[in-house]
Amino acid sequence: MKFERVTTSSGSRARAGIITTAHGQIQTPVFMPVGTAGSVKGIHARDLKNDIKAQIILGNTYHLYLRPGISVIENAGGLHRFNSWDGPILTDSGGYQVFSLGDIRKLSEEGAKFQSHIDGSYHLFTPESVIDIQRSIGADIIMAFDECTPGDADYTYAEKSLGLTQRWLSRCFVRFGATSPRYGYEQSLFPIVQGGTFAGLRKKAAEHVCTFDADGYAIGGLSVGEPEDVMYEMVEVVTACLPENRPRYLMGVGTPANILEAIDRGIDMFDCVMPTRNGRNGMMFTSQGTINIRNNKWQDDHSEIDPEGWSFVDHDYSKAYLRHLIISNEMLGAQIASQHNLAFYLRLVTEARKHIIEGSFVSWKTEMAKKITQRL
Amino acid sequence: MKFERVTTSSGSRARAGIITTAHGQIQTPVFMPVGTAGSVKGIHARDLKNDIKAQIILGNTYHLYLRPGISVIENAGGLHRFNSWDGPILTDSGGYQVFSLGDIRKLSEEGAKFQSHIDGSYHLFTPESVIDIQRSIGADIIMAFDECTPGDADYTYAEKSLGLTQRWLSRCFVRFGATSPRYGYEQSLFPIVQGGTFAGLRKKAAEHVCTFDADGYAIGGLSVGEPEDVMYEMVEVVTACLPENRPRYLMGVGTPANILEAIDRGIDMFDCVMPTRNGRNGMMFTSQGTINIRNNKWQDDHSEIDPEGWSFVDHDYSKAYLRHLIISNEMLGAQIASQHNLAFYLRLVTEARKHIIEGSFVSWKTEMAKKITQRL
Repeated sequence: MKFERVTTSSGSRARAGIITTAHGQIQTPVFMPVGTAGSVKGIHARDLKNDIKAQIILGNTYHLYLRPGISVIENAGGLHRFNSWDGPILTDSGGYQVFSLGDIRKLSEEGAKFQSHIDGSYHLFTPESVIDIQRSIGADIIMAFDECTPGDADYTYAEKSLGLTQRWLSRCFVRFGATSPRYGYEQSLFPIVQGGTFAGLRKKAAEHVCTFDADGYAIGGLSVGEPEDVMYEMVEVVTACLPENRPRYLMGVGTPANILEAIDRGIDMFDCVMPTRNGRNGMMFTSQGTINIRNNKWQDDHSEIDPEGWSFVDHDYSKAYLRHLIISNEMLGAQIASQHNLAFYLRLVTEARKHIIEGSFVSWKTEMAKKITQRL
Repeated sequence: MKFERVTTSSGSRARAGIITTAHGQIQTPVFMPVGTAGSVKGIHARDLKNDIKAQIILGNTYHLYLRPGISVIENAGGLHRFNSWDGPILTDSGGYQVFSLGDIRKLSEEGAKFQSHIDGSYHLFTPESVIDIQRSIGADIIMAFDECTPGDADYTYAEKSLGLTQRWLSRCFVRFGATSPRYGYEQSLFPIVQGGTFAGLRKKAAEHVCTFDADGYAIGGLSVGEPEDVMYEMVEVVTACLPENRPRYLMGVGTPANILEAIDRGIDMFDCVMPTRNGRNGMMFTSQGTINIRNNKWQDDHSEIDPEGWSFVDHDYSKAYLRHLIISNEMLGAQIASQHNLAFYLRLVTEARKHIIEGSFVSWKTEMAKKITQRL
């Protein structure tokens, strides 16, 4: 994997770059649609590529391991073959999902024991098994197995948790180095910086991951309940420590405004379920502002969904029609809203990139953030 | 509306034809995807047209009247503008839906009083109001308001019910004649032949509808619980009475084999929720036979969904992937299965038409029926 910085924006730490993977190039900053169980909910693979213009999508180790199971994916020839997305894929390590399981998971030095949310069966994830699974999935970018520290953790917990994540990271790299790609193309391993909401721990964590000279670095454990200002502060602390010549991935973030702010602080890669999950509930991010399409005010608004949108759904369908579909629980409503929101996110980061290169990012960001956070 | 018979098949009553409507031509025999609430579940309008190659779709008076409500559709400029399907549209009159409501509807000479399945509110459909609503929806083909006689009705009930349907039909034509299209293009009114499972009543009903010299004729109240043989017998009795130079529509039928048999008996138009509803549950009609994609046998079948299919989903996705999506309740599974099944139905009637024109329908039908009714 290669990361080339195209330029930096004046007056900002924002970066434009190009990541080259075995499955193609990714222009950064980039937003990665989430395909938890091997499918971005409601979106055909060809629409992801041609309409939304996604450059890379996510898969989820935890979900894919449980269903369809790793042997099915191996027999398909990897996730790219299985789900017919032939661009780059990044897999989350399962650390976050296991964290979300709450009472039905138990951490130890060895790894995380958990019960399947599907059938209650018992499983163990270790740093080693999680690397093996991601080798089998065939992700271009593999995430290290970590403990996702809760947003409200105190210093003692966060420090102890970081220690576990650091020891697990070493084991991840050992296993990664001792194994080969299963399908013949290169895979990269990204460490995850934890440390809760404590600048000192975050700095320590960032310096620690740098010792591995990885192809890229991720920041985890943010947007998990802490105030936004704290999130931005942690991002600043961490990006200041990370090398300039490697991509930086802020995991699970966030609203369009969060993404603009994080780009400003030097983040290159993002993922979030918000565009699809909120879309299914009728919340639309548009170039004019945020819309709750369920509101009565859209009932007789027969204008197109987003006149500036780049998806066909923005122009083929009206707000009134979409409202009708969402209110009536018609599947097509969730499809349209998800496709619109994803295209909006992709368009936003593409615009951001353009303005970074043109040196106009800061003024554009200020104006855009005001526009898109409006509630219509 | 114009109906032109292209040819008839030798050794069969099957017909190939062309219906010309204000929104384009329809090559018959044709299958019409059902868009109950103004959307064919899970399918984008552009995929309906370009991928499934639908020529006409259905809307439903009952559902559209309740939600979004007729004023919204009027403000949009009719259903074609509202749902962005610019081809021909046929609307069911609501008779069948009201019939399905069971205890929460009451018939009288005036019409049908019913309670909304959404909020329990009370409504009255009369032959006149149902014509007015379909004028407002802007359907190219409007269906008469009828009582859908249950499949197990005795002669006394079926005869009495037919009488009501006949009197309502007269009122439908009076109202239709006294009103004009709302959006400037021509609309046609199709009567519906009822009569239960009694050949004598069906014949009487068919002769009655012919006195109206309509643009086309429908057969209702079949595939509602009666044996298949009885259904075919009723179709034969009715089509023998209907004029050759008008299209014939068998409502709500059916399996692919049902459709082939009905084409053989002179039916030109079909609709059914089976391809979408069964698709959502994982039942796939393919060129090799019927598949329950949930079965374990497909878990590791990485071959494409239907090598002979004409939809992109048939070739973009594998059986194993579709199985995984359906089992995991991923929305995309329902989308793929629905799109495949609809494309299969459209391809089936298109093939039928080709063989009718070539004079090889009967032998093709026999072979095809055997193939597609196989369970794989």
